[in-house]
Amino acid sequence: MSFLDKNAGIYTDHYELSMSQGYFLNGRSETPATFDYFFRKNPFSGGFVVFAGLQDLLDTLENLHFDEESLRYLASIGFHDNFIDYLSDFRFTGDIYAPPEGELVFPHEPVVRIDGNLIEAQILETLVLNILNFESLIATKTARMRMVCGERMLIDFGMRRAQGLGAVHASRAAMLGGADSTSNVYSGFSFGLPTSGTMAHSWVQSYEDELTAFRRFSEAFPQKCILLVDTYDTLGMGVPNAITVAREMEDRGQKLMGIRLDSGDLAYFSKQARKMLDDAGLEYVQIVASNQLDEYVIRSLNEQQAPIDAFGVGTRLITGRPDAALDGVYKLSHCDGKPSLKISENVEKVILPGPKKIYRYFDENNMMYADGICLQDEEVLETMHHPHQPGKSSQVGRYRREELHQKVMSGGQVLVEKKPYQEVAAYLKSRLQSLPEEHQRFDNPHIYKVGISESLRHLRDELLKEKKQQVEKTRHAYDKS
Amino acid sequence: MSFLDKNAGIYTDHYELSMSQGYFLNGRSETPATFDYFFRKNPFSGGFVVFAGLQDLLDTLENLHFDEESLRYLASIGFHDNFIDYLSDFRFTGDIYAPPEGELVFPHEPVVRIDGNLIEAQILETLVLNILNFESLIATKTARMRMVCGERMLIDFGMRRAQGLGAVHASRAAMLGGADSTSNVYSGFSFGLPTSGTMAHSWVQSYEDELTAFRRFSEAFPQKCILLVDTYDTLGMGVPNAITVAREMEDRGQKLMGIRLDSGDLAYFSKQARKMLDDAGLEYVQIVASNQLDEYVIRSLNEQQAPIDAFGVGTRLITGRPDAALDGVYKLSHCDGKPSLKISENVEKVILPGPKKIYRYFDENNMMYADGICLQDEEVLETMHHPHQPGKSSQVGRYRREELHQKVMSGGQVLVEKKPYQEVAAYLKSRLQSLPEEHQRFDNPHIYKVGISESLRHLRDELLKEKKQQVEKTRHAYDKS
Repeated sequence: MSFLDKNAGIYTDHYELSMSQGYFLNGRSETPATFDYFFRKNPFSGGFVVFAGLQDLLDTLENLHFDEESLRYLASIGFHDNFIDYLSDFRFTGDIYAPPEGELVFPHEPVVRIDGNLIEAQILETLVLNILNFESLIATKTARMRMVCGERMLIDFGMRRAQGLGAVHASRAAMLGGADSTSNVYSGFSFGLPTSGTMAHSWVQSYEDELTAFRRFSEAFPQKCILLVDTYDTLGMGVPNAITVAREMEDRGQKLMGIRLDSGDLAYFSKQARKMLDDAGLEYVQIVASNQLDEYVIRSLNEQQAPIDAFGVGTRLITGRPDAALDGVYKLSHCDGKPSLKISENVEKVILPGPKKIYRYFDENNMMYADGICLQDEEVLETMHHPHQPGKSSQVGRYRREELHQKVMSGGQVLVEKKPYQEVAAYLKSRLQSLPEEHQRFDNPHIYKVGISESLRHLRDELLKEKKQQVEKTRHAYDKS
Repeated sequence: MSFLDKNAGIYTDHYELSMSQGYFLNGRSETPATFDYFFRKNPFSGGFVVFAGLQDLLDTLENLHFDEESLRYLASIGFHDNFIDYLSDFRFTGDIYAPPEGELVFPHEPVVRIDGNLIEAQILETLVLNILNFESLIATKTARMRMVCGERMLIDFGMRRAQGLGAVHASRAAMLGGADSTSNVYSGFSFGLPTSGTMAHSWVQSYEDELTAFRRFSEAFPQKCILLVDTYDTLGMGVPNAITVAREMEDRGQKLMGIRLDSGDLAYFSKQARKMLDDAGLEYVQIVASNQLDEYVIRSLNEQQAPIDAFGVGTRLITGRPDAALDGVYKLSHCDGKPSLKISENVEKVILPGPKKIYRYFDENNMMYADGICLQDEEVLETMHHPHQPGKSSQVGRYRREELHQKVMSGGQVLVEKKPYQEVAAYLKSRLQSLPEEHQRFDNPHIYKVGISESLRHLRDELLKEKKQQVEKTRHAYDKS
């Protein structure tokens, strides 16, 4: 499944194409450029982000082109003929460096680096942001839920509340982040994900009474029968009827798989239902809970020792509510052989110039200690500096290190193989095991150290000084005018 | 542009297909059923919802089928051969009643009614919810922003933060809700929407200095030149350089269209920039503002009399942050000739049985007074009851009324013509003019009256009584067991 079958070239913001036309008309179609994808803040007030979306991005980029009808459209809205000719042959021919999907990444790190000519690297911006921001958001949200679910089942029920076609990739991202299955058949088909589902209230309502509805369902799905018990009255009717059907199934040599609670106080109802099931000798019948769940509700249910075996999570997983977006950006850091800078009113928004790589340091217990960003041609990084606070530094030379970036695309060709979702989810799980707990907690997590090398700091500060001198000169000339 | 070119049949939750197979195996493929789409709470703590997504839904339904590869997939995950045979000929053949896009709708109203056989109406659930929930959410969010923008430009800049492919329909919904243009070229192409854009920081960074970057842009885009002034220092460099370029453009007989502020205190910077531009005799140069805008920030900028001419809104518009979803549901209200009910622990979640229609009442000043829900075959509705509080009622017989539902699909054929987005946006605008202000305010809006007819109340209460008797019987039998 590619991201878009047709017209992916125009799946972009208008200004990417305007600027590209400007570069083209200025004779800059061969100017080399490096862009960095990074974000400034962890979503959900959390301590990390799960990197996801790379596979969809690479798939899309490998085939990226402008179809005839796209080109006709661009002509119709005023783009130049010469530029449209250029686009008709357009292919992305650059290089991309990125961590594997499932990697833990942190604010201000150049998570993905794109080297290409100025036009191709610019045109990619919206695609990169649209895909990586969203899939990383959903994988991160799901990972947080997985943390509180432990070994119990976590199922993506979100499709009906998803942001339109966003559902397609959201369900994949949920599986990377640790969900066990998804209700989304389309994504199951597209990405080879396991799908599952129970029954809706409509099934129950469509029969003359609940008991008949349960019986018919147990006959139709004897292997995977999960009965929704809250259509009329959970404890007064739904659970008793489920018990009746469970016994009838036993008489047929079958087993009721579970019941689902979808309203009311899930802690109270799960305890009562568990007791009723156990009293009936149906200890094996599982309890599935759904209805406005998220990591906080599940944590609260845990604290109350609610006997729930599986969680079906919808809206808040599939939309990453309440954040709804990761604020990733895509910034030019090197152009035509020279490092490039953007300043901001806010010191934390000054970007890091030059082509860069990231090292991850592990302490003596093999736990993640810090990440260090350095220039591409640096080999050793003994001392790591706080990116903004002068005088703050860490010694990391004694620690084992890994480089986070792999070259994943070269000259427009994908270099890495597609991984099944299980492999990504397992990688994430292993990474979370090496992330100290204080970075994982939901409330005021400890900030993971991300530092920069001496050379990078020096380069940034020199460029900053130079730019500030230009600003002073301009301001002075303006004041005199 | 259809919603999905291929495999739209499996763009659904797993349980829709399981239940449908169950209905099929139970010989119920011709059982008539009515489902209602409705929501229980206005998003954004607001007073209304803008109905959107109908056109995309009808387009999709008219062509809905199961492709060969979808059927093979369903077979591979265990669906019955006979059911797959049934699906290979599947077409939606039912009727749909809905208001036009751009209509104002309110909690608990059966906004859309679907009449079909049990299987086809069930299979539609996820599609209906996925499309209508999302587009209505985004149209509503945009309408709120339009309310505070007044006649000034409102531009959708959200694609990069959109939820993946959700961007495609989000940008259309934003235009229905009142945006003037969108940065999203793909949606522009797909739906005939006007697209626009300015420049990114990368354009400025890619040149040796900001003045050169501005000059080159003004040469490339003399008609629509908007310069981004915050790459290095907004007031110290960006605005002075923009003024220099504006004067050079005047010498060439051209006019600088505007400058864009994208960081810092937008109220302060816009006032300072306006003064600098005016002092230079450039009163015609407009100020565009962007960066984390929403209806509250724009309202605050208005209160501070920030001289901003156009707002570029991204994340919070395109994702409907912080709600990120409208909680619409799809419930069976009539099955096999009999009205159907679902009960809940929460009285407000009891559904309204039977096939229904909605009347909207306008007061003597032609302002919206209330909506009344009644059974399909009722003609007059003098007295309207509060849906849950006994004894509360309104007399509406004296008011002019309109029926909200149109028949939009008959026997699977679309009955209504596609409307250009401008027509929908204009309709919404006219409807908002007849919605009293107290329902439009952001803070604790007055709740718009939605009542039910005497007959509907009677039907619901009778069914409720009957179901509660069944519950008591079951509870009693369980207690004795």
